[in-house]
Amino acid sequence: MKVVISGGVHGNELTGIYLVKKLQHDFFEAKNISVDFLLANPKAIKMNRRYIDYDLNRAFSKEALTQDSHLYEFERAKVIQERLRNSDFLIDLHTTTANMGISVILSKKDEQSESVAKILAKEFEQVRIVQWFGSDEGDFINSLVPSSITIEVGHVCQGVLESDLFFSTLKVVKRTLDILEKNEICKEPHPAYKIEKYVDFPRRDGELFGMIHPELQGKDFTLLHRGDPIFLTFDEEEIFYDGESAYPLFINEAAYYEKNIAFCLSQKIAI
Amino acid sequence: MKVVISGGVHGNELTGIYLVKKLQHDFFEAKNISVDFLLANPKAIKMNRRYIDYDLNRAFSKEALTQDSHLYEFERAKVIQERLRNSDFLIDLHTTTANMGISVILSKKDEQSESVAKILAKEFEQVRIVQWFGSDEGDFINSLVPSSITIEVGHVCQGVLESDLFFSTLKVVKRTLDILEKNEICKEPHPAYKIEKYVDFPRRDGELFGMIHPELQGKDFTLLHRGDPIFLTFDEEEIFYDGESAYPLFINEAAYYEKNIAFCLSQKIAI
Repeated sequence: MKVVISGGVHGNELTGIYLVKKLQHDFFEAKNISVDFLLANPKAIKMNRRYIDYDLNRAFSKEALTQDSHLYEFERAKVIQERLRNSDFLIDLHTTTANMGISVILSKKDEQSESVAKILAKEFEQVRIVQWFGSDEGDFINSLVPSSITIEVGHVCQGVLESDLFFSTLKVVKRTLDILEKNEICKEPHPAYKIEKYVDFPRRDGELFGMIHPELQGKDFTLLHRGDPIFLTFDEEEIFYDGESAYPLFINEAAYYEKNIAFCLSQKIAI
Repeated sequence: MKVVISGGVHGNELTGIYLVKKLQHDFFEAKNISVDFLLANPKAIKMNRRYIDYDLNRAFSKEALTQDSHLYEFERAKVIQERLRNSDFLIDLHTTTANMGISVILSKKDEQSESVAKILAKEFEQVRIVQWFGSDEGDFINSLVPSSITIEVGHVCQGVLESDLFFSTLKVVKRTLDILEKNEICKEPHPAYKIEKYVDFPRRDGELFGMIHPELQGKDFTLLHRGDPIFLTFDEEEIFYDGESAYPLFINEAAYYEKNIAFCLSQKIAI
């Protein structure tokens, strides 16, 4: 089984980048798996930016992969497609400015990925499972491989390393390799948070006029009810939630301001 | 007296940018001062990046201001020099990923700036005074005006607004205008932290091999002693401080990785 660990799909998410650099030099004894490494967006990594022309993790749609393009990330996506051609399992490392702990994101229905995620969630207190079946902006890198997990850790700022989070993520990555090496399977159901909707910031003509409410800040995975405050405008007026109860995720993620996402809404399911 | 409030000298430091946008539309009654506003780096603000070609807040040296340049920020610095020509006092708004609370930075010896800083520090628990008399990279925007304070708030990520910090910064800005309007003076001495040295991350051939130690993370303004742990390498080895006791500032500021600054060292003085 060929496993790939990728970091730097987003060039300013340093935890994954330096974990890949470290793991490349560490010795990992394995009989049943081979491990390869990918620094996915070298130009963005060098520039310490999320991307150069387009979010690489939305550049794996069929259209992006089959057209010639002036966008660096569309061309890079084609190169990565070749690199991952015979890979069986991808571990893709990301960070977020939201209080997501160590979230294991599943981006399609797949038994092996779910099984790995469930074992991790049972063993690590910080690990929660999130189901996110793609974005309108374009497909994730995970769409290139049969099985995968995205490990999304935070809160940590773009362009910053925090050692606690670095080493706790490392443990989860090493355990993932171990699960794959031993072919451990989990068939018991486990809770997961399925992303279903996005909520934008308050805007006028595209321009922000409010921020995440202090009572919502950091409350990822905490059930949000109708009437709870979600935004505070620059004039200190509160804006309240008026939808069905849901679990907010990715609250105040820096990279989602431009995607018009203040937070995602998810429902708790069993997988 | 002409006062200018600037935000967006760094284009991804959203707190100052949105404070300027808000204050531009708020009514401020004043007899003795006029207030003008500056969004200093419009191109970087649009791109949500610290800068385009060069750190604008290091682009105000005589050399930068007198040469033609292919660097966007060097040209922008000349435009700002013109804009600030008859200004008496600058309030420059910044954010940091370090745990700096609300730091009022003084960038030269000047009685009026010191007096304003001291009144703020006496009245606001979160406010501390920092003396930072410039960088080898080039002069700060403050060098263009007779008097100024830089308000540097954090911890907050680049590209993110946090409402608590937004409104606490707003209070300090409004009080600053009030002090200037009433020409309040403080002659009593007050403690300040004078930045004297920089400490880089552990590197081999320029490449990081360690991070801020978890025991140092967030400990800005806490006295550091010889033998205290400061870094943790990617192989989990501790690196200890071996200098004279000093107060670390700007610990783990995202924008300083490329400047080879893991943290600054300061001494406590009275001003």
